[in-house]
Amino acid sequence: MNYCFGIDVGGTTVKMGLFRNDGELLDKWEIKTRTENGGEAILPDIAASASARLEQHRIKPEEVLGIGMGVPAPVNLEGVVKDTANLGWGYKEVRRELEELSGFKVIVGNDANVAALGEMWKGGGKGHQNMIMVTLGTGVGGGIIINGSVLVGEGGAGGEIGHLTVNDSETEPCGCGRKGCLEEYASATGIVRLANRRLKKDNLPSVLRAGKVSAKAVFDAVKEGDQAAIEIAGEFGRYLGNALSNIAVLVDPAIVVIGGGVSKAGDILFQFIEPHFQDWAFFANKNMKFALAELGNDAGIYGAAKLLLNK
Amino acid sequence: MNYCFGIDVGGTTVKMGLFRNDGELLDKWEIKTRTENGGEAILPDIAASASARLEQHRIKPEEVLGIGMGVPAPVNLEGVVKDTANLGWGYKEVRRELEELSGFKVIVGNDANVAALGEMWKGGGKGHQNMIMVTLGTGVGGGIIINGSVLVGEGGAGGEIGHLTVNDSETEPCGCGRKGCLEEYASATGIVRLANRRLKKDNLPSVLRAGKVSAKAVFDAVKEGDQAAIEIAGEFGRYLGNALSNIAVLVDPAIVVIGGGVSKAGDILFQFIEPHFQDWAFFANKNMKFALAELGNDAGIYGAAKLLLNK
Repeated sequence: MNYCFGIDVGGTTVKMGLFRNDGELLDKWEIKTRTENGGEAILPDIAASASARLEQHRIKPEEVLGIGMGVPAPVNLEGVVKDTANLGWGYKEVRRELEELSGFKVIVGNDANVAALGEMWKGGGKGHQNMIMVTLGTGVGGGIIINGSVLVGEGGAGGEIGHLTVNDSETEPCGCGRKGCLEEYASATGIVRLANRRLKKDNLPSVLRAGKVSAKAVFDAVKEGDQAAIEIAGEFGRYLGNALSNIAVLVDPAIVVIGGGVSKAGDILFQFIEPHFQDWAFFANKNMKFALAELGNDAGIYGAAKLLLNK
Repeated sequence: MNYCFGIDVGGTTVKMGLFRNDGELLDKWEIKTRTENGGEAILPDIAASASARLEQHRIKPEEVLGIGMGVPAPVNLEGVVKDTANLGWGYKEVRRELEELSGFKVIVGNDANVAALGEMWKGGGKGHQNMIMVTLGTGVGGGIIINGSVLVGEGGAGGEIGHLTVNDSETEPCGCGRKGCLEEYASATGIVRLANRRLKKDNLPSVLRAGKVSAKAVFDAVKEGDQAAIEIAGEFGRYLGNALSNIAVLVDPAIVVIGGGVSKAGDILFQFIEPHFQDWAFFANKNMKFALAELGNDAGIYGAAKLLLNK
């Protein structure tokens, strides 16, 4: 059995990868995520697409180890999802259903956790076994890898890094309903919020006052030496650096890998995060490395394949 | 192979247990921890004592699965310790050395993490696979159990719950040199510090003003309805409850087990911790249970045996 599938189910498309078991990606493609009627077509579509692609490649089903899959919801170790608003699913035994539909062994995980596993296997965390992944996008996602495996937790909600409380005195609520979550300061939207707060404070000239404020605009301005932007990035880095020091004291990672849209700013991010991390870090965690994610949108399919191969 | 040893190495005594592999403790005893000369006698003493006890019980070495052992230091997955001030050891390949001395398979872990595993196996966390253990003693120790295994981390420093930063504005340093660690508020000494701060604030009458302030005195006074003591316990509970909400968002545990000297106050502790936990908890963590540790000083030998049996 030399082949496997790595599948990343999103709200609009399903990314699919056909891998050799040594990690070589042979083919990747996308299908639409049909969320109508409670998402009833999603798993049959996946099974049919996987089967058709095997025929194209003249690979027999008996040569396939199975399917690893990430879905945008907490998933427990039995591959059961309780609720996924953005796929239309309620309670769903995803693993069992896809095993029946496809005839293959299936392992299912949370998409953010699975992407973290992908980055550890073939991306920014390559060569490490203990890793924190932080995905700075519209929200802050994450995954914790311990001794090569995803930290899943009791109900599949392990690694919810974006909802670590980092500011007890915040007054505006996070999307989760609580206040002071890391997501409110380190996501793309959080950075815009920090920027608007800073710009309102006084009249310091800034290129950010000209156009639409975005996380990208902030870090572009930082690279031009814009003082207000540097202060905004500093606040972002302080919250994220402190949060990472607290995550590290619990999980003792070798490396943190930073991905998501905000990470496109590049290495300059670390200038704002690392000093705060070092200020706060417990002595045993001071050697933690920082790296950027490398797989982009493919992290999910790589990680899904690895999730299966780990079993 | 029906038997195993669970051993808990402390700075003054080594606690030793002989178990049946189903978890029944057949015999327990202690030997002195001889820390002189770089602690060179510690492992030979352990091997000799284990061997002698087997003879007493007429158990043959080939009936023994091996030795699980907890030591008061970070231990990596290879059973290597980098430094242990209180045993006299520097870099030491504990697992390899004890395997050579005893002839048995050996698995070594950090003592606090191992005690957590013991409480999960046979104590307050029985029946669960995802657990946080918090030991409120002179310091705050801890252990995180994920899917039935100890979270060890890269260098063996996983689960250092006592050094989670919970107060950015603390001015007094923790023993670790940083400021605002959970240990400064939730350990027995931390509670005394909180008490002294509170008593100095005004002249509110309190039974705590009569004798020597201790964590026990604070919770005894709480039970008598002493207002100052209730406020002190409230502050302790707020820090610990908030810290637990942040640990939970990362590791998604089923249960937290609270042990150590402070836990002798009993269930009343939860009245001060749980409301704060619930206030701050991420929605996915709100069902986390609270329990008291049950094994006392035997948690270490039980957990050490389980550490071996898990392999």
